[in-house]
Amino acid sequence: MLKNEQQRTFDLVTLGRACIDLNAVEYNRPMEETMTFSKYVGGSPANIAIGAAKLGLKVGFIGKVPSDQHGRFIRSYMKSSGVDVSHMIDDTEGHKAGLAFTEIKSPEECSILMYREQVADLYLRPEEIDESYIADASALLVSGTALAASPSREAVFKAVSIARDHGTKIIFELDYRGYTWKSPQETSVYYSAIAEQADVVIGTRDEFDVLEGMEGGKNEETVSRLFRYRPQLLVIKHGVEGSYAFTKDGSIHRGLAYKSKVLKTFGAGDSYAAAFLYALMTGEEIEKALKYASASAAIVVSKHSSSEAMPTVAEIEQLIADQS
Amino acid sequence: MLKNEQQRTFDLVTLGRACIDLNAVEYNRPMEETMTFSKYVGGSPANIAIGAAKLGLKVGFIGKVPSDQHGRFIRSYMKSSGVDVSHMIDDTEGHKAGLAFTEIKSPEECSILMYREQVADLYLRPEEIDESYIADASALLVSGTALAASPSREAVFKAVSIARDHGTKIIFELDYRGYTWKSPQETSVYYSAIAEQADVVIGTRDEFDVLEGMEGGKNEETVSRLFRYRPQLLVIKHGVEGSYAFTKDGSIHRGLAYKSKVLKTFGAGDSYAAAFLYALMTGEEIEKALKYASASAAIVVSKHSSSEAMPTVAEIEQLIADQS
Amino acid sequence: MLKNEQQRTFDLVTLGRACIDLNAVEYNRPMEETMTFSKYVGGSPANIAIGAAKLGLKVGFIGKVPSDQHGRFIRSYMKSSGVDVSHMIDDTEGHKAGLAFTEIKSPEECSILMYREQVADLYLRPEEIDESYIADASALLVSGTALAASPSREAVFKAVSIARDHGTKIIFELDYRGYTWKSPQETSVYYSAIAEQADVVIGTRDEFDVLEGMEGGKNEETVSRLFRYRPQLLVIKHGVEGSYAFTKDGSIHRGLAYKSKVLKTFGAGDSYAAAFLYALMTGEEIEKALKYASASAAIVVSKHSSSEAMPTVAEIEQLIADQS
Amino acid sequence: MLKNEQQRTFDLVTLGRACIDLNAVEYNRPMEETMTFSKYVGGSPANIAIGAAKLGLKVGFIGKVPSDQHGRFIRSYMKSSGVDVSHMIDDTEGHKAGLAFTEIKSPEECSILMYREQVADLYLRPEEIDESYIADASALLVSGTALAASPSREAVFKAVSIARDHGTKIIFELDYRGYTWKSPQETSVYYSAIAEQADVVIGTRDEFDVLEGMEGGKNEETVSRLFRYRPQLLVIKHGVEGSYAFTKDGSIHRGLAYKSKVLKTFGAGDSYAAAFLYALMTGEEIEKALKYASASAAIVVSKHSSSEAMPTVAEIEQLIADQS
Repeated sequence: MLKNEQQRTFDLVTLGRACIDLNAVEYNRPMEETMTFSKYVGGSPANIAIGAAKLGLKVGFIGKVPSDQHGRFIRSYMKSSGVDVSHMIDDTEGHKAGLAFTEIKSPEECSILMYREQVADLYLRPEEIDESYIADASALLVSGTALAASPSREAVFKAVSIARDHGTKIIFELDYRGYTWKSPQETSVYYSAIAEQADVVIGTRDEFDVLEGMEGGKNEETVSRLFRYRPQLLVIKHGVEGSYAFTKDGSIHRGLAYKSKVLKTFGAGDSYAAAFLYALMTGEEIEKALKYASASAAIVVSKHSSSEAMPTVAEIEQLIADQS
Repeated sequence: MLKNEQQRTFDLVTLGRACIDLNAVEYNRPMEETMTFSKYVGGSPANIAIGAAKLGLKVGFIGKVPSDQHGRFIRSYMKSSGVDVSHMIDDTEGHKAGLAFTEIKSPEECSILMYREQVADLYLRPEEIDESYIADASALLVSGTALAASPSREAVFKAVSIARDHGTKIIFELDYRGYTWKSPQETSVYYSAIAEQADVVIGTRDEFDVLEGMEGGKNEETVSRLFRYRPQLLVIKHGVEGSYAFTKDGSIHRGLAYKSKVLKTFGAGDSYAAAFLYALMTGEEIEKALKYASASAAIVVSKHSSSEAMPTVAEIEQLIADQS
Repeated sequence: MLKNEQQRTFDLVTLGRACIDLNAVEYNRPMEETMTFSKYVGGSPANIAIGAAKLGLKVGFIGKVPSDQHGRFIRSYMKSSGVDVSHMIDDTEGHKAGLAFTEIKSPEECSILMYREQVADLYLRPEEIDESYIADASALLVSGTALAASPSREAVFKAVSIARDHGTKIIFELDYRGYTWKSPQETSVYYSAIAEQADVVIGTRDEFDVLEGMEGGKNEETVSRLFRYRPQLLVIKHGVEGSYAFTKDGSIHRGLAYKSKVLKTFGAGDSYAAAFLYALMTGEEIEKALKYASASAAIVVSKHSSSEAMPTVAEIEQLIADQS
Repeated sequence: MLKNEQQRTFDLVTLGRACIDLNAVEYNRPMEETMTFSKYVGGSPANIAIGAAKLGLKVGFIGKVPSDQHGRFIRSYMKSSGVDVSHMIDDTEGHKAGLAFTEIKSPEECSILMYREQVADLYLRPEEIDESYIADASALLVSGTALAASPSREAVFKAVSIARDHGTKIIFELDYRGYTWKSPQETSVYYSAIAEQADVVIGTRDEFDVLEGMEGGKNEETVSRLFRYRPQLLVIKHGVEGSYAFTKDGSIHRGLAYKSKVLKTFGAGDSYAAAFLYALMTGEEIEKALKYASASAAIVVSKHSSSEAMPTVAEIEQLIADQS
C-alpha cells in the first residue's frame, strides 16, 4: 500500500528534528564517570531518513538545523548517507541543535540527558513548507515530537494538509517524548488531530495511550476508534513481546522480536520504522515487513549508535536467515 | 438543518471569551476626550449567547472568567440574560478579563482599544471541557479567537472532537482579531483545521481570506474547497453589500442589509449570528434566517452597546415589516 | 535641604509610571454593581508631579506611555496640569497604559483591580534617560514600582547614577505594589540598592519592612541601618498614627494626621509626598513640611480622584488653620 | 591587601557558574569534523576556585548545579580538587548545566559553541545565599556573568551586600559573555552597580569598556572614575601586551606576558585570576602577583583543558625562573 506507484521523485520524505547524539565512549557505568563522548546524528525522523536511504529508498528530509558547527555536521552527514537535504532549512535566529547525552549503565539501564531548550527543529515555520517537495514524494512521515511546540506544530499541520491535497501518503510516527510537552492533554489533542488524517500510524502501546489520553488502553478499541477516520494501517509495538499490524479491512499480523546481544535500547524504534517502511515501499507483504522491522531493530540495539548503525538489506536478511 | 430534533437540553452552547466592553459615554469625539465609560459584557461568543437567549433559545456558555469583580459581573449579567453559566469556569491563576474601550468618532470611524494580555478566556484548558455538557447540546458554536493561544486552542479541538462524537452540530464563527495572533500563517492553519470539521462556518469575506491564507479570495473557490470536507452550510458576509449563504447541495442565497441609523459598527456580526441561528433552529428557511440576521444587525448598530442592545423577536419582525 | 539653590530649570523631576485610573461613578457598593467609570490620570510619580506642579513647583516627568488614546490623554492632562512632558516617551511596541479600576465599598473598604500586564511604563529603557534633563533638575524622585521589571529597572539605576554625578538630590518613594514583583527577596535587593544611594527615602512602615526583607521592623533600627549610607532624611509613615521624619544628624519629627471626611484611601500617599517636598523645596522646616503633607493627604482622601483632587497651597493652609 | 588576616575559614569563596566544557579530542580542524569530545568542569568562577585550591588556598564555591549526571560530575570533580562544595545547591526545577563545545581550528582561531538556555547557574536565588558562609570568607569573588539574569543577578547583589556587612573583601571578575545579556546598556548598569561596591575589579580592557558603556576607553579615565567609589585595586588586561594593576594610592604596575606554545586561548583569564589572587593572599607584592598571574595563564593556554590544566606553585615558579 505504500509503493511509489506514481514514480515520484521521493519514496519517503521525513519531517521533524535532526539533532546530535553524544554517546558515552566509556560505558557500563553512570554518565558522571564517562569522560569522553562520540558525536552522531540523532533524532527519530533523521534516523529513519538515514536508515531508509541506507536500505535503498529515495529519501528527503524537511527540518530546521542551527547555523553552527552542529548544524553543518548534521547536514553533511545526512547528505553523505544519501538523504536529500535540499529542504533542510538553516535557522537564522540563534537556536541550537538538540542534544542527547546517552548513559549506558547496563543493557537494561539506559537513560538520556536531553538538551531541548530553544532547539532549532521546533522553529520550523508553516510558510517554510514547500508544497512541491511534498507533492513530489510518495509518502510523508511526520514525527510526533514535531507537534510539541509552535511554530513547528503548525508546520506539521500545513505539511499534512498539503500531503492530503496531493495524494501523498501520510505516516505518523508517534515518537512521544514527554519532556517536550506541556501537558498530556495537549499531546492527546494534537496526536488525535494528526492521527485522524494519517494513512499509517506507528507507535508503542504506551504512545497510543498518550494519543487516546488514557492509561492501559486496549488495541482493539484503539484500532476501532482510529479506523473511523482516514488510517488504513496501524502498527502497535509491545517491546519484547513483538508488534501488531492492523489493517482497515480487519486483518491482524504479529511480528516477533529477534534475539540480539543488546548493548543499549536507543534507536530500536527508528530502525524498526525504517525497515518496515522500506519493505512495504518495495512491495513486500506486511508479514515480511514486520520481520524486516524486527531484524533491523535487533541489529541497532547491539551497536553503539543509532544513525550510523542502521543496517543494510544484506545484514537484515542475514539475521532473518540466521534465526529462522 | 439546525433544529434541536433530539430535544437536547440546549439548543446552542457557545464557547470562547466573555469580556468587558467599556463604551464611551460621551461620543462623536476621540477617546482621549471621553471622560466616562459605561460597562457591558462583551466578546463575540458571549454576545451571541446573550442574543440567542433573548430571542428564546435555550443557551449555555463554556468559557473562563477571572475571579474578580469583572468576572462576577460577567457571570451575573449573562445569567440574568437567560444564559446557563453552569460551565463558566473561574480562573484561579490571576488572569484578567479582556477589555475593549470603544471609541466612536463618527458612525464611519469607530475603533477599539483592546486589553488582551494574559486574559482569562485564553486559559480555558482541554481537561475543563465537560463531555456531557456538549452531548446535551444540539449545536456548539466555537469562536475563532478561542484558537488564538494555548491552552484555549486545545480546548477548542477537544470540544469539537466531543461534538463530532455526539452528533452535536458544530458552528464555527471565524471572529478574527488580528492582534491576538502571532502570524497569519498560524491563523490559517488552525482556522482550516477547525473549519474542515465544522457543519456551519460563518464569517466575513476577509475572514475567509485569513482562513485560506490568501488575499482577494473568491466565494466560489472558497466554497468548493470547504465543501470537500464536513461543512454543510457556509455564510460569507460582504458588509453593506449583504451576505451569501451556500449549501452543500449547491443552493446560494443572498441576504440584503437593512437601513439603519448607524451609531457605531460594533456588535453587528454577533447580532447577525444570534438571529441567523435562532431562525434556523426554530425551523425557518435560510432566506428567512438571512432576513432575521440582517435585521438584528441593523438594530444593534443603532444602539450604544453590543450585548444589552440584542433585539427581541418582535423588534426584528417589526423592522423587517417596516422595510418590506 | 531640598531647595533649588543652583536655580536649575526644574525643582523636581519624577520618574516612573503614568497610568489611567477608572474610578467608580456609583460607589459605596461592590464594583460588579458599578456600571460607569470616570477616567483620571493615575500612578504615584505622575500624581506627585501633578500635585507638586499644582502647588507651584517647576516639575518634569520621565516615563513611557502608550501610543494610543490613553497615552495621548495622559500626556495632554499632565501638560495642562503644568508638568513638563518633553521627556515623556511614546512606546512604539504596542504596550498599554496600566489601569486601576477603583472599588469603593465604604471608606474603610477600598480596593483596586489592576491591569499591569505588558504596561508601557515598565518598558522605559536606560538608553532613553537623558543625562542633561536630570542635570537640569534640583531633585529626582524615583518610584519603587519602576524597579519592578526590566528594562525600567535598569532605567532607574541609570537615572540615579546620573543624578549622583550631577549633584541632583535623589528622593526614593518606596511605592510598593506587591503584584508587580516576582518575590519579596527581589524587591528587598533592589529597594536596598537604590535606598543606599538616595538622599531622601519616603515610605510606610510596611514598605520599609519590604525594603529590609523582614516583618515588624523597628524605626530606630531601620534608620540606623540606612544612615550608614547616603540618605540624609527618612520619612516613615504609620497611617492614622501619623508619620516620622528622621534626619542623619539625629533629629526626629512627628507629623500628626488631620481629620477628614474620608471617601476613599487612594491617593493619600501621593498627595502627602507632593506637599512634603513642596514645603522643603520652598525652604520650610521639616515640622511645617509634615503639616503640609498631612493636610494635603486629608484633602485628597475626601475627594473622588487622586490626580485631579490635588490641593492648592491655599486649600492646604486653610485646612491647617481650621484644625489648629 | 587580600591576606586572610582574621583567619577566616576560607581565603576565597567564588560565586557563579560551574558548567561543562566539551573539548575537541581531534583538533586543528573545524568542529564539524571533530567526532569525539572530552568532558571537563568549566565556567570562570569554578575554574578560579579549582585553580586557587590547587595552589593551596582554602576555597569555597557558591552556585547552583543541575540534579543530573552533569551536576553530579561537577560536584565530585570540584570536591576532589579541594574546593568546599557545601554551598553548591542542587537545582530542583529541571534546569541544565551550561555547555561549552570548544573548537580549536588553530592557536589563533578558537571559538566556543555555547548552550546557555535555562541553565541552572542563573537560577541561584538571593534567599539561597548563606550569610554565615560569606562571613567566614576573607574574600568573595563574583563573576560578571552571574549578573546576566534574574534571579542569579539578585543573588549577586545579596552576596555583595552581605560581604560589605561582614568585611569580606569583594573581588569582581568582569567575565563578560555577550550572548548571555539582553543589551549592552543592561550590562553597563549592573557592572557599574557592582564595581562601585567591589574592593578589586579584574577584567580585560574590552570588559571595562562594557562596564563603562563605551568603546575605546582609556585606562586613566576608567581608573579615576572607579576610584571615586569603593575599589582599591583595578587590574586591566591587554592580552599579549600584558596587564596593568592600579592602586587607589596612585601606583601603577605592569605585568608582561610569558612566552608559551599556545594550543588554545580558553582558560587564560581564569588561571590568571587564580594565581594573581593566590599571590596577594599569601602576602606577595603586586609585582610578584602579576608575574604569577601571567605565568599561570601561559601554562594553561599550552594545555588541552581549562580546569584540569590549572598549574601548581612549583610549575608557575619553574616557568618564571625559566624565562627570567
